[in-house]
Amino acid sequence: MSHALALAARGLGRTWPNPAVGCVLVKDGRIVGRGWTQPGGRPHAERMALDQAGPLAAGATAYVTLEPCAHHGKTPPCAEALVAAGIARVVTAQTDPDPRVAGRGHAMLRAAGIAVTEGILEPRARALQAGFLKRVTQGLPFVTLKLAATLDGRIATRTGESRWITGPEARRRVHLMRLTHDAVLTSSATALTDDPDLTARDMGATHQPLRILADARLRVPATARLGQTATRHPVWLLHGPDAPAEARAAWSMTGARLITAPAHGPQLDLTGTFRLLAAEGLTRILIEAGGALAAALIRAGLVDELALFQAGCLIGAEGTPVLGPLDLTALKDAPRPTLVEATTCGPDTLTRWAF
Amino acid sequence: MSHALALAARGLGRTWPNPAVGCVLVKDGRIVGRGWTQPGGRPHAERMALDQAGPLAAGATAYVTLEPCAHHGKTPPCAEALVAAGIARVVTAQTDPDPRVAGRGHAMLRAAGIAVTEGILEPRARALQAGFLKRVTQGLPFVTLKLAATLDGRIATRTGESRWITGPEARRRVHLMRLTHDAVLTSSATALTDDPDLTARDMGATHQPLRILADARLRVPATARLGQTATRHPVWLLHGPDAPAEARAAWSMTGARLITAPAHGPQLDLTGTFRLLAAEGLTRILIEAGGALAAALIRAGLVDELALFQAGCLIGAEGTPVLGPLDLTALKDAPRPTLVEATTCGPDTLTRWAF
Repeated sequence: MSHALALAARGLGRTWPNPAVGCVLVKDGRIVGRGWTQPGGRPHAERMALDQAGPLAAGATAYVTLEPCAHHGKTPPCAEALVAAGIARVVTAQTDPDPRVAGRGHAMLRAAGIAVTEGILEPRARALQAGFLKRVTQGLPFVTLKLAATLDGRIATRTGESRWITGPEARRRVHLMRLTHDAVLTSSATALTDDPDLTARDMGATHQPLRILADARLRVPATARLGQTATRHPVWLLHGPDAPAEARAAWSMTGARLITAPAHGPQLDLTGTFRLLAAEGLTRILIEAGGALAAALIRAGLVDELALFQAGCLIGAEGTPVLGPLDLTALKDAPRPTLVEATTCGPDTLTRWAF
Repeated sequence: MSHALALAARGLGRTWPNPAVGCVLVKDGRIVGRGWTQPGGRPHAERMALDQAGPLAAGATAYVTLEPCAHHGKTPPCAEALVAAGIARVVTAQTDPDPRVAGRGHAMLRAAGIAVTEGILEPRARALQAGFLKRVTQGLPFVTLKLAATLDGRIATRTGESRWITGPEARRRVHLMRLTHDAVLTSSATALTDDPDLTARDMGATHQPLRILADARLRVPATARLGQTATRHPVWLLHGPDAPAEARAAWSMTGARLITAPAHGPQLDLTGTFRLLAAEGLTRILIEAGGALAAALIRAGLVDELALFQAGCLIGAEGTPVLGPLDLTALKDAPRPTLVEATTCGPDTLTRWAF
């Protein structure tokens, strides 16, 4: 199962709206087939592993990170395929909460006389598939907030200087994070200041994450890097209902997809906007934005994980804070995420915190 | 030598103005004597180990973390004692930069026909004795700045709430840090806000660090906890030449030692003040203060190590910053300490950074 989970991780960021699943077929102590959900979400992991094993699948044990699907979608159900291939035993890490499956996959296998063991390494499987699980159960994507700051929580000097606070190893790690998310989202403030292109570079990547710009009033010009590169890699532009028609027209020319998101006056309604993104199929979104959007997302309770890069650098109280106002009235109301991982990235540190 | 260094560490915070040294005597593959500098700086490590070994010292190898002393101070020189005991070989980690020793200890041993090997595990020994080395070579103490903040670099909410941001494990670690420093120094701002007593509690400690209050204008009342406990454990009060006579009189009654420190107007001259503390024999000082003193010490280049505790907590931009203004004009001038250690303290993280 551990190996199946590692295979599943290969699909992260590329299988949405489907979950990233891994499957290993073992017969007489040898691996006869391995599969993981392919880019775009198909073929499924089980199909790939069965095709690899061919006739050797008969009598094998299948280790699958998620309950095999039981419904006829764009592909026949995997539970049926496992039965047809003569699999003797199926071991899964968790039940699929998708209402079209929800135990029916396990039941279909048992009905065919296959021994089924559930819940093996379930915590690791749940962590890996957190994006899919949250989308299916809550209608929201899993959100990772990336922040990079000095030891005293600053991202720029008084005069606005900010490049480069963290080192090349941290930037490389960020590019890797982009690849394991379905989409990278930035704010108009960051787009206007840094003009990022949000691609994953120098990683040998064969795909790029979807890039999303949240810009309620379409303040960012279509000549920004995101606009210039929209035909090469997809860009979605989230704007409010009142965004100026000229800006809409200019952005339409770039190849970006314009999406009208719910707004409260000049600000996007973040919860409504993220529901919309989940409905579009997105399961994992990485936020790379400034302190204002970061604080707004935390206030709205939309952040699942904080990835904090810190450089051995001090800027002092005049610097720009990494996080905007949280409007706390008491310390007991402060968000208290818990530590998931602490590591180093070259000269910098990276800590990951779960909300 | 590794064992000798571990023995030496037992003396940290208790041997000033002397260095904390460790000594292990090995004969025929067995340890026949172990010693470390005793509280107050005497007996020296070598004396203690030789006394423990007795006649077994003859023909033994001595592992010492610092070159044995060669001068007649309050005790006879250790180099002489090692010769008299018939030690066959001496292995040291580093030369003693004290001008009264500075190679003379090694020379005295060699002159007596003892084989001497120098520089074993020198980097570890230098790190351990950084306080002694800095005092002897630069006339300044080694300064550890402890900061405890949220992930976004805040120490209190807008309304001033700050207890407790970090957890009991981090506080316990701070108390341990107090014990391995000669003195703990705080500012008037922190004394007025938090009224700390700066002792090491619940650690089974048999001694307490010296407590120092830097209060140029003697704004802190003598009824503060530091004043109330000054007869139990020593307190030094650093004030400027213009501190009010009534406040001086009140503090004198508490048992605290009043020291007139150099000042620039209403502020202490920090470099001059720390030179004074080194001249008084202090080798290792832990700073537990607010953002203003922390920033002033960093600006003055007086901080050697930053110990940063961070809690999984977010307060937002309205909160009090952990560090005051650094008056940077360009990012390239920002202090850039390097990572020494990254660890966790219960739910919090601790990173140590060397300047």
